[in-house]
Amino acid sequence: MIPASYSMALGNETPAQTTKTPSQNLIVLIGDGMGPAQVSAGRNYLRYEKGIDHLTLDSYYVGQATTYADRGEDGGTIVSGVVTDSASAGTAFATGNKTYNAGISVSNEDVSKPFASIIEAAEKAGKSTGLVTTARITHATPAVYASHVRSRDNENAIASQYLEGGVDVLFGGGSQFFLSKDEKGKRADKSIVADFQNKGYSVVKSASELASLPATSGKALGLFGSSHVDYVLDRTNDTPNLATMTQKALDILSQNKQGFAIMIEGGRIDHASHANDFPSTIQEMLDFDAAVKTAIDFAKKDGNTSVVITADHETGGLSLARDNIYEMNMDLWDKQKHSSEFLAPKLKQAKTVEEVRAIVAENTFIQDLSDEEAQFIMKGDGSSYAQEGAFNAVVSKRMLIGWSGHGHSGVDVGVWAYGPIAELVKGQIDNTQIALAGAQIIGVDLKAATADLQAKHVYPKFKITRDNQVMYPAKALAEALDATVTYDAASRTVQFKGTAKTLNVQLDSLIVSEGGTDTGLKGNLDNNVLYLTLDAFNKLTGKTMTWDALSERIIK
Amino acid sequence: MIPASYSMALGNETPAQTTKTPSQNLIVLIGDGMGPAQVSAGRNYLRYEKGIDHLTLDSYYVGQATTYADRGEDGGTIVSGVVTDSASAGTAFATGNKTYNAGISVSNEDVSKPFASIIEAAEKAGKSTGLVTTARITHATPAVYASHVRSRDNENAIASQYLEGGVDVLFGGGSQFFLSKDEKGKRADKSIVADFQNKGYSVVKSASELASLPATSGKALGLFGSSHVDYVLDRTNDTPNLATMTQKALDILSQNKQGFAIMIEGGRIDHASHANDFPSTIQEMLDFDAAVKTAIDFAKKDGNTSVVITADHETGGLSLARDNIYEMNMDLWDKQKHSSEFLAPKLKQAKTVEEVRAIVAENTFIQDLSDEEAQFIMKGDGSSYAQEGAFNAVVSKRMLIGWSGHGHSGVDVGVWAYGPIAELVKGQIDNTQIALAGAQIIGVDLKAATADLQAKHVYPKFKITRDNQVMYPAKALAEALDATVTYDAASRTVQFKGTAKTLNVQLDSLIVSEGGTDTGLKGNLDNNVLYLTLDAFNKLTGKTMTWDALSERIIK
Repeated sequence: MIPASYSMALGNETPAQTTKTPSQNLIVLIGDGMGPAQVSAGRNYLRYEKGIDHLTLDSYYVGQATTYADRGEDGGTIVSGVVTDSASAGTAFATGNKTYNAGISVSNEDVSKPFASIIEAAEKAGKSTGLVTTARITHATPAVYASHVRSRDNENAIASQYLEGGVDVLFGGGSQFFLSKDEKGKRADKSIVADFQNKGYSVVKSASELASLPATSGKALGLFGSSHVDYVLDRTNDTPNLATMTQKALDILSQNKQGFAIMIEGGRIDHASHANDFPSTIQEMLDFDAAVKTAIDFAKKDGNTSVVITADHETGGLSLARDNIYEMNMDLWDKQKHSSEFLAPKLKQAKTVEEVRAIVAENTFIQDLSDEEAQFIMKGDGSSYAQEGAFNAVVSKRMLIGWSGHGHSGVDVGVWAYGPIAELVKGQIDNTQIALAGAQIIGVDLKAATADLQAKHVYPKFKITRDNQVMYPAKALAEALDATVTYDAASRTVQFKGTAKTLNVQLDSLIVSEGGTDTGLKGNLDNNVLYLTLDAFNKLTGKTMTWDALSERIIK
Repeated sequence: MIPASYSMALGNETPAQTTKTPSQNLIVLIGDGMGPAQVSAGRNYLRYEKGIDHLTLDSYYVGQATTYADRGEDGGTIVSGVVTDSASAGTAFATGNKTYNAGISVSNEDVSKPFASIIEAAEKAGKSTGLVTTARITHATPAVYASHVRSRDNENAIASQYLEGGVDVLFGGGSQFFLSKDEKGKRADKSIVADFQNKGYSVVKSASELASLPATSGKALGLFGSSHVDYVLDRTNDTPNLATMTQKALDILSQNKQGFAIMIEGGRIDHASHANDFPSTIQEMLDFDAAVKTAIDFAKKDGNTSVVITADHETGGLSLARDNIYEMNMDLWDKQKHSSEFLAPKLKQAKTVEEVRAIVAENTFIQDLSDEEAQFIMKGDGSSYAQEGAFNAVVSKRMLIGWSGHGHSGVDVGVWAYGPIAELVKGQIDNTQIALAGAQIIGVDLKAATADLQAKHVYPKFKITRDNQVMYPAKALAEALDATVTYDAASRTVQFKGTAKTLNVQLDSLIVSEGGTDTGLKGNLDNNVLYLTLDAFNKLTGKTMTWDALSERIIK
């Protein structure tokens, strides 16, 4: 009895498009960092403190997914173990391909190839598309759906690729990557908000502006914060919650008679769990569950929509109970007035036990902070979370909540689904199956969309020399461009036989020659790896490829 | 789209028996302490170290179950939070009822009522039954299927109740609760092994004796250790593994043309995780998965068997990765030569850094134990696991494995199934649904079996006075025996109007009178609770109830 999902993963994930697909619309919801314990915690809170028997999620549970990353390196350093980050997990469930941690929908190679996402494939099929998150809209999980970069940290490039691309609705935080430094943003080049407006995007920046957006907006960019959207515990009336953003996005996208595909992320379950901020974890979990309700309600009414929900990974190594005590103090879970992120600057400034005690008494259920606890908070927990981490450790211990650190863990994550997609993602699956099932259910072609992207761009490792030349690892890039590379040990010469020309590089002189003639180009040897400039590859291929310095990719 | 399992839990769990049931046989497999991370760990080990893509389990994943216990008290102390122990969880999935931690298939009341298990109901339906475990056969998980006691610690009573009962095959450890103190057992009364033989049980004590048992044995008692069966890492050829015990049990039980019901427990995943012994957790997990394969292979061949697999709870707050490092060192997971339980006496005796270092070097992958690590091991981890706990903490940190303590945690557990039962346990369920679905699928009547038990026994709290009188909380027990209890404040008299007689107890004199006449019985006031002896309740009911001191229950 092998589940269909197993056998399907081996078959054709993208069948030829038919006129009638199982679903016209696809809604993907991602709880970032929402491991099994985060889900159980949310339900326990509802059950014991709110008298609500279960999460909206619970009625749609169909299976669980493995999340492992490809082991790999980035920038010459091994950065990727098998415990995934959001970039690698996102690449898997957005495109159907595993990659290394930090890779945004590119392959795990020295010269990476882009992988198309379900959102990009849906665009090609004439559907409307959207990305909605409480994190920065340029953060890894939305990024994997509509951009391609070697490193998730390149959020300026991700924002620019959104501008080039065709995603209709973009709601989240992260305005800093759309604004120049002059406008308190992080872009060295220019602000690009006006460029979005010129392309027809309505731009909104508050809950009230979002509410005023008509369903007929077509294209909309909502930026609700310089970095991430504020935590639930810190929101004002001007900050939309995830369900509100979700409803507006669905209102807009559902205008398209050809259907839509959207990804909605509860992005800050992860952040709260990284900080080990359990009260925020609970509230972000419920904020996400409310968006699930909005999505499912839409799908039920619409009748032509599949919904699939999963997480990218677990965060924090959360444990519900600790220290050999068989209890969870649910009554304490909602007694905190702000996120630990909000309190962190105050905690950092506090210089006496009394000051710490006052902050803790004002903002938490703890009215009897011990000297030892206060001193631990002042000292910090030894991680980069410092005083905030220590504060959360104190609060968590009192709540009987355990954490194994500030990073991710490798436990499987839940899968929930509504509509025809449910049959394709049930049982024990790998997270890549989420993308493959989505493509099948709305009849879009991931392979064709990927082929289009790979014809345009390649993402090589590179280095920038002291005289500002961009150089590429010669053998890896040449082979990626269909050249044959051979080495003659006697003359210490590497030969590159390209599709247009053949070049030789002598490793002592580093002269690049063609038919015995010096081309004027020079190679560069670094740790026994030969590097060449783009000019050399243009000669080899007969093309006029250019370097996109922002997205760190070659335009073929 | 409420899953069938949700709606079913509200309906009739035990429909009238029909001649043709969906399955004739039921196999329940319980991985004790097998939380989501334990399962993911087992799969990762197979995938990365053995080249095997997945666990046997994985192909049968259908959902997950909540495990919460009833909050409750035992012996006057609050012992039960919502994080379940094996007794409470077992009572839920064996009988379909929640109870307090420590309760073995009895209700969460001052005067508990017994709940019948699926095994007991199957016996009444003429099926053969079996209990197989790597823990003591008298431990909580098997106990809930064939015994009823207020406290799981009363393992002598559990063994005696097995003798009274009708379970055909009992395989596990725990011979100490079948043997008198003279025979190095823990029974004050007598050895009861011969009593099992007199009832027709073949008794075996080793792997070779087990292998020699014919399938036609009918009844068999296998006791493979004084306490639990040895860990996989410590087994000799004379210790059967769980799959071997499972195969033999199925061979014997499947002789019955009316079918069978069996519970098979991987009992020591829990113990290893309690100790935070990760290498043993992995091996016990795989030992359990091998038994799953044996069960599923049987069911596939048989064609008339449902299999359901779950866990009672997670143990240890296991986290796969820790300390912000996104890796699991799978290559180190099988490098330990013995369980930490086996090494504990050696570690306890070691008095120098050098002695500790030698034990660690000989038995683990750690050849460079630091002075600090060695000193920590000598000092112990502050828990009752002491040096063993500290040893496991050192090993786990090196393996990048986290734990939140030595107790259980409240995360949901997986559910796997094969055969007709799968439809009834899929999605998000509560663990009680495992019992209800099992009863439905083999057509046995839990309610009728429970009514039979409740007609026979009641399990009151009690106290034993200095002069060795057993006394019961008067109001609670009287009401449980259908008496009406009223209090006259003016005369400080409690009136008990029983089904046969009416008794009055004056709270100052504590004289028990009937129609104004002193009965000669005396009450006892303890912390404002009135206690009476069984004689008083016999008068009230007109019965001749007796006290079963071993099982701490009243025989009605």
